[in-house]
Amino acid sequence: QDIRAGREKAASCVPCHGLDGIAKAPDAPNLAGDSSFYVDAQLKAFRGGQRQHPQMTLIAQSLSDEDIADLAAWYSAIKISAKLPQD
Amino acid sequence: QDIRAGREKAASCVPCHGLDGIAKAPDAPNLAGDSSFYVDAQLKAFRGGQRQHPQMTLIAQSLSDEDIADLAAWYSAIKISAKLPQD
Repeated sequence: QDIRAGREKAASCVPCHGLDGIAKAPDAPNLAGDSSFYVDAQLKAFRGGQRQHPQMTLIAQSLSDEDIADLAAWYSAIKISAKLPQD
Repeated sequence: QDIRAGREKAASCVPCHGLDGIAKAPDAPNLAGDSSFYVDAQLKAFRGGQRQHPQMTLIAQSLSDEDIADLAAWYSAIKISAKLPQD
């Protein structure tokens, strides 16, 4: 669960998920502040085929458990705040 | 794509996804600021079975296309900002 290693490994995620985990691509979710449990579970679901996506399935198949733990640590370490739209 | 209707319909999502779309449950993602395209696609994947989750599959099966569009509009209308962890 190494945040700094996760930040380095996340370099290839940036085009879709953004430098700060706020998505750039409309078909990608924000990852900033997601729990490490959730990020870990989703990457393993893509790797194992329980969840499918053209790019994510390929990317996840190249990830080790350690890569996944580091990426999960990185994204969950990003602090986010939300502002509700005013009616 | 009615934000106000989406906010009302999101009342049942709050226990896991939070009032402001920042998740309360560790196995739930943040939804705040996710694109309406992404939220719409994920709810339809849960409804159609392409994606599975114990609660989400059941919840999504009760949603109409209009419910999904309103929920997607609501969550994408929430503004989020991210703060990277300092090294």
